[in-house]
Amino acid sequence: MGYKVAPLARLIEQFERFPGIGKKNAQRMAFYVLNLTDSDADDLAKTIAEAHSKIHRCRVCGDLTDEELCPICKAPNRDTATICVVEDPADVLAFERSGEYRGLYHVLHGVISPINGVGPENLNIKSLLSRLNNDDVKEVIMATNPTVEGEATAMYLSKLIKPLGVPVSRLAYGIPVGADLEYADEVTLKRAIDGRQQF
Amino acid sequence: MGYKVAPLARLIEQFERFPGIGKKNAQRMAFYVLNLTDSDADDLAKTIAEAHSKIHRCRVCGDLTDEELCPICKAPNRDTATICVVEDPADVLAFERSGEYRGLYHVLHGVISPINGVGPENLNIKSLLSRLNNDDVKEVIMATNPTVEGEATAMYLSKLIKPLGVPVSRLAYGIPVGADLEYADEVTLKRAIDGRQQF
Repeated sequence: MGYKVAPLARLIEQFERFPGIGKKNAQRMAFYVLNLTDSDADDLAKTIAEAHSKIHRCRVCGDLTDEELCPICKAPNRDTATICVVEDPADVLAFERSGEYRGLYHVLHGVISPINGVGPENLNIKSLLSRLNNDDVKEVIMATNPTVEGEATAMYLSKLIKPLGVPVSRLAYGIPVGADLEYADEVTLKRAIDGRQQF
Repeated sequence: MGYKVAPLARLIEQFERFPGIGKKNAQRMAFYVLNLTDSDADDLAKTIAEAHSKIHRCRVCGDLTDEELCPICKAPNRDTATICVVEDPADVLAFERSGEYRGLYHVLHGVISPINGVGPENLNIKSLLSRLNNDDVKEVIMATNPTVEGEATAMYLSKLIKPLGVPVSRLAYGIPVGADLEYADEVTLKRAIDGRQQF
């Protein structure tokens, strides 16, 4: 039985479409909105409209930005010899949180997935190749997700990139730090053994 | 390390304020918004603004509505002799989903909670008493949550209502249907024994 107050029902329905938000959570979110002050509610609606209209892809790497170049491509202190290729803007955030990587990124906005009708032509690949042709890039690190589709996309890209004479590497597979070996799956364990390193 | 693109950072921050939404989820929600079509994003912002401006409390019961009376107070086929007192609009939804209750509601919009600075004067109590004075109400059912504060609020209200000559009842405590006795807490078990019924 749905709510009979139309504007509220519409609001709950809008929130239900968000990823990872179920019926109950959408309801709680809607009640939260109704309890906001007038200016906070106004702010929320405006922030959504503004973010959607102002944010687009960086001309160079495809990451999200509200200027021509994203903050990372624009930064003077990044190592421009390395490009880390990721699936989504969220992956850039994850790397930046770790603070370990000082190179540039390239965001594909997806993976090759014939089942979902996503081919190489639907991804941000062309501009990656032109970056490799023009720039002084010394290494490309593939950091697609360790899924079948992520792997296939990395393979596909590495075959395109190698003829250009740029070395391509891949993130290491292995046991995640802090995990319990007992619960590691077989494939991960095999990869961890294959990739073992000398003390 | 936060995101450096200001409109996106603001959007994520807005979503983080929602109840039950953590950092990761707020990020996913923000990316969902950026991937909407122009008209869908516009719709979302407008639905939020509209719901917030149009929805207010029902003049009679305090539940949420976009008209003078809520759909339940306005309905011709409800049993007007019974009023079920609940904490929040979400509780009305829960009762309506069960479809078992045909009476009216009264929404307190909170519970008495000295720690949080909420006294009886902050709740929707006055209009409840005036409903009992004027209407042909034969029973009030207390359906506040089974917490210390919910209980105390129900006790407080029943003391106010009894002098008006209206019987006050409380929801039954006991084992939830489908639950496993093994995992029931002691207080619930004690209440279930105290409230046992004859076959």
